[in-house]
Amino acid sequence: MSKALTFELLHKDANSRARRGRITTRHGTIETPVFMPVGTQATVKAMKPEDVEKTGAEIILGNTYHLFLRPGSDIVREAGGLHKFMNWNKSILTDSGGFQVFSLGQMRKITEEGVKFQSYLDGSRHMMRPEDSIAVQTDLGSDIMMAFDECVPYPADRRYTKDSLERTTRWLERCVKAHHNTENQSLFGIMQGGMYKDLRYESAMQIREFDLPGYAIGGLSVGEPKELMLEVLDDCADYLPEEKPRYVMGVGTPDYLFEGVERGIDMFDCVLPTRLARHGMAMTSCGKVNIKNKKWERAFEPLDAECTCYCCRNYSKAYLRHLYKSDEILSSMLLSEHNTHFLVNMMANIRKAIEEDRFLEYKREFYNKYGEYND
Amino acid sequence: MSKALTFELLHKDANSRARRGRITTRHGTIETPVFMPVGTQATVKAMKPEDVEKTGAEIILGNTYHLFLRPGSDIVREAGGLHKFMNWNKSILTDSGGFQVFSLGQMRKITEEGVKFQSYLDGSRHMMRPEDSIAVQTDLGSDIMMAFDECVPYPADRRYTKDSLERTTRWLERCVKAHHNTENQSLFGIMQGGMYKDLRYESAMQIREFDLPGYAIGGLSVGEPKELMLEVLDDCADYLPEEKPRYVMGVGTPDYLFEGVERGIDMFDCVLPTRLARHGMAMTSCGKVNIKNKKWERAFEPLDAECTCYCCRNYSKAYLRHLYKSDEILSSMLLSEHNTHFLVNMMANIRKAIEEDRFLEYKREFYNKYGEYND
Repeated sequence: MSKALTFELLHKDANSRARRGRITTRHGTIETPVFMPVGTQATVKAMKPEDVEKTGAEIILGNTYHLFLRPGSDIVREAGGLHKFMNWNKSILTDSGGFQVFSLGQMRKITEEGVKFQSYLDGSRHMMRPEDSIAVQTDLGSDIMMAFDECVPYPADRRYTKDSLERTTRWLERCVKAHHNTENQSLFGIMQGGMYKDLRYESAMQIREFDLPGYAIGGLSVGEPKELMLEVLDDCADYLPEEKPRYVMGVGTPDYLFEGVERGIDMFDCVLPTRLARHGMAMTSCGKVNIKNKKWERAFEPLDAECTCYCCRNYSKAYLRHLYKSDEILSSMLLSEHNTHFLVNMMANIRKAIEEDRFLEYKREFYNKYGEYND
Repeated sequence: MSKALTFELLHKDANSRARRGRITTRHGTIETPVFMPVGTQATVKAMKPEDVEKTGAEIILGNTYHLFLRPGSDIVREAGGLHKFMNWNKSILTDSGGFQVFSLGQMRKITEEGVKFQSYLDGSRHMMRPEDSIAVQTDLGSDIMMAFDECVPYPADRRYTKDSLERTTRWLERCVKAHHNTENQSLFGIMQGGMYKDLRYESAMQIREFDLPGYAIGGLSVGEPKELMLEVLDDCADYLPEEKPRYVMGVGTPDYLFEGVERGIDMFDCVLPTRLARHGMAMTSCGKVNIKNKKWERAFEPLDAECTCYCCRNYSKAYLRHLYKSDEILSSMLLSEHNTHFLVNMMANIRKAIEEDRFLEYKREFYNKYGEYND
């Protein structure tokens, strides 16, 4: 088994399934539960890597699909890998490209061999097989690679979902075989099974066979109602081995993070903080703030009085509104830094609460004091 | 006379009119000759103020016209002034709004009283008088305010130019009368006179009467050929008092900076470094670099091997090209920082050369080694 990653389970909350852990990769430690900012195109949008690091982030996510198409993984490899290319010295997780091949690729066609798709950039035709995904991720040199899977859309019928999860398992086997740089990179498997609990169980049992260093729960937050998502998630974590990190892909609203942690999830990622920022939206301890609002025209206080980020220490809401209204790049820069800091810092508070066996209390405090987020 | 600003003439180059000086304002010292980055809308585009400071910049420029229209100078005043509003603690110079009223204002109409214009933002009608310009600049709280003038377009006939410069002098008188915050803010006069040397002289003699702490040469670089610009500039500096700083507005290409310094100019400003950056253009010691060019696809060396800026210490041309091609904000951020550092650092080299009486030698070295810039 890979020594590229270790996971220590440090503490289990006395009153919930929330867990406090620590992942160690060749690029440092990652305290869990963790929120991972997304750097799709080898940059966390509108932030310097040093500013990402200042938010407290210990790992970021890179997107295999985007980097495969541009600049090309050979270029990133020749540059010395993604860490060096983008000047980020902490850990990196790369997705498999599977999700984007399905969601962004045009004319996609799935076969047992892999997925044929057209580039969203120029319409050029490509084939991505499990082996290709691993080859690209090997070029990128991420600390954690994800297996190439099919993210089943919602809704999907039982038959399709079962066929798909079984193919995802066969693809996982091919990923494992194609993965050779085990000294430096670890490979996580991905559970599928749609909204069918028994299929989730089946998928989990199949991927556990490979004794991988970590597992993700894929195919959630793909359009299903929140209640259904939480119901499915409720059992999923228990299907996965306790001694391995568990990762729910693509969720990043505060409520989903709390609900995930409560169910024993350790890792999350989402483009939300930086995307909201570019649209003039801030996540604050008093709820979401629309910085465009005229009521902030003369609001000379910081965005969030409780926040210690660079933005809140140095700028007023009135200034941030002015920047947004003036279409200034600094608006996206400051709000991205704030929002990323907000989620990373919220996770730090969650970790502390777990250590003190008061996760549920903290969750109630958070919701009561700040309102329940829904985005 | 205002104590808000002092100017020391430290050294005169033995072989040219180049001068080494030091301006002191309430917000610190400014070593001259100096290049001032432009922060039109209360931000140097795509840069945090701390990053502007790291380039070595000691003074930036803010635009009265833009800030008057958005967010409104009353809001900046209520925020505690422009320094506090935008989190920049070193010196600020504000222009008078005159240039933009003419170049950006629609339906502008000049009378003895002032200028009527329509906002470029929403078409709303405004009147700006010399007294209004000073009131706005007082609200902004800049260290150096500029008198409200008419920047005569090129070409302009002699009669119009003469009438205009005389009105500019009458407006200067009104600016001086309207300027009360003399403890904290100093007011510079602006020489006009178009391309007519005798009118330049006439303008200079008129504005010198006011014994202001500094003087600018306006109405240059407005479309005239470079040779003509330099010919006019050749005499202009000598018309102004030696013991006061001299400022040529709106020029920022390396060649114009060298030529201006050689003629005894102390201060310059231009949007060029940040504007070029947003278009993927870098100023480097080897000449201008178009980062979009395919030849940089696998160029893993820094943008400029001689440069010590954050961008050149941490990123490759290949990465910068990738960011630009991917339409990533970080592209503008990194190139803006590099270009601003380049010009600010070039001025530091010029200052050192003057101190050592080898300005002309350094100029030749710069041109020989790096090629003559024309932009």
